[in-house]
Amino acid sequence: MHTSLEQISATKCFGGWHKRYRHRSRVLDCDMIFGVYLPPQAEQDASLPVLYWLSGLTCTDENFMQKAGALKLAAELGLVIVAPDTSPRGEGVADDPDGAYDFGLGAGFYINATQQPWAAHYRMYDYVTAELPALVEANLPVSERRSISGHSMGGHGALICALKNPGRYQSVSAFAPIINPVNCPWGQKAFGGYLGNDRAQWEQWDTCELIAGAQERLPLLIDQGEADNFLDEQLKPQALEAAAAAAGHPLTLRRQPGYDHSYYFIASFIDDHLRHHAVALQS
Amino acid sequence: MHTSLEQISATKCFGGWHKRYRHRSRVLDCDMIFGVYLPPQAEQDASLPVLYWLSGLTCTDENFMQKAGALKLAAELGLVIVAPDTSPRGEGVADDPDGAYDFGLGAGFYINATQQPWAAHYRMYDYVTAELPALVEANLPVSERRSISGHSMGGHGALICALKNPGRYQSVSAFAPIINPVNCPWGQKAFGGYLGNDRAQWEQWDTCELIAGAQERLPLLIDQGEADNFLDEQLKPQALEAAAAAAGHPLTLRRQPGYDHSYYFIASFIDDHLRHHAVALQS
Repeated sequence: MHTSLEQISATKCFGGWHKRYRHRSRVLDCDMIFGVYLPPQAEQDASLPVLYWLSGLTCTDENFMQKAGALKLAAELGLVIVAPDTSPRGEGVADDPDGAYDFGLGAGFYINATQQPWAAHYRMYDYVTAELPALVEANLPVSERRSISGHSMGGHGALICALKNPGRYQSVSAFAPIINPVNCPWGQKAFGGYLGNDRAQWEQWDTCELIAGAQERLPLLIDQGEADNFLDEQLKPQALEAAAAAAGHPLTLRRQPGYDHSYYFIASFIDDHLRHHAVALQS
Repeated sequence: MHTSLEQISATKCFGGWHKRYRHRSRVLDCDMIFGVYLPPQAEQDASLPVLYWLSGLTCTDENFMQKAGALKLAAELGLVIVAPDTSPRGEGVADDPDGAYDFGLGAGFYINATQQPWAAHYRMYDYVTAELPALVEANLPVSERRSISGHSMGGHGALICALKNPGRYQSVSAFAPIINPVNCPWGQKAFGGYLGNDRAQWEQWDTCELIAGAQERLPLLIDQGEADNFLDEQLKPQALEAAAAAAGHPLTLRRQPGYDHSYYFIASFIDDHLRHHAVALQS
């Protein structure tokens, strides 16, 4: 039996619809909300391809839909966009004891926690790679052709989801992704909390580590602002350049002079990413 | 002596810059923040035309810049966009005693209040038509060619600013404007508070009243969603259709089936408005 979707809003945009749905997640053991953009083509075509967008720290399903400026071209290209939340939510879901922005609620890191109390709900990897696509594909006018992208923590999420699941995604891209979480403060805090102290466990969720053993040479398209406040301490794209070069993995890393970490940066380049995904999804 | 501008942020977007400035407003007797988008052409051209955007109830200078999806085309067209706040702000500025969203802070209605305590600060009409343009034109790379647009309360603001100032704006447009505030609850509450009980005073700030005596036949471009929750009680575009027909004033009122009152609606049609203004500003 499929979990049912409760539609909580429907807003017309560029001839299509931005809708928000609530559903019970068995994987996360809580109610979740996700957003979807259905382009105008969904009126006639029940097998549209889907781009999954994974947002960054502190975001919900709404940030990308409101701020990325992606829906105009999605409407032209006939792309469905699905934007999940960034962590489990609700009463009974553990949060950082200090309410930090970079751990707990809004900071699931798209991994499966093994340590309590996190392991009870924080299984965002299983949610975004399996439960949510199954729900979307059972209930919305989409095909099983999927691509994935995201920003910062969500760029990390998009890259590990693609690298760990050969054949599941037609294409992958990221904006300012955390490409080497085992070697940066955000990742070390999150992985230490969710996964414990065994560094071998951490490496299973790290793009730079995964790329060496990738079974599929899916090209990585990455935009990184050179004025990003988090560039030197958290993001360090040169580590991915080195890992991709060592593995012979195709990487297009575009360093964008003057751009920061915000949605103004994402908006400036999202159309290039949508076209990249549309070519892969519709070929 | 010109009031100085304090730059509080600069974010690159579509090759140009979204900047926020703080300044002391003599008209409003408080510190104010406004946002500006400077397209890439501002690097070479110090006399770019300006579109003023007036936002709706509860907004600040940020909503339009983040959510309208306007900056891509503004960058292509070489349009500067200036987005002021929606009311005076800060300590000492009176607010609705109940903290209502539709009066006081975030709800200045772009008029000059005559009643205390409002008259001390609530002079948004003088601010957006005179003080702010003078400040912008003295400090930023712009010409004196101006257009004006806005949403809801800000659509009302754009229309009255243009109608009351023949020759000051090259073009005007609005999304879901409050076109007849003297005959709707939002307007009656605001005008009663800011202006007192003399209805003749109210009519000086009402688009349907002003259009009869307009000294300039500036065409009005208006988009109105037909699924707008405020359509029947607050917006009533048929009143403007009747007033424009009676006055022989050119009006293009586009009723957009299925669209609501949100920024998803604005984003869907903002490019049409930008092109409308660019033609007028650059001719």
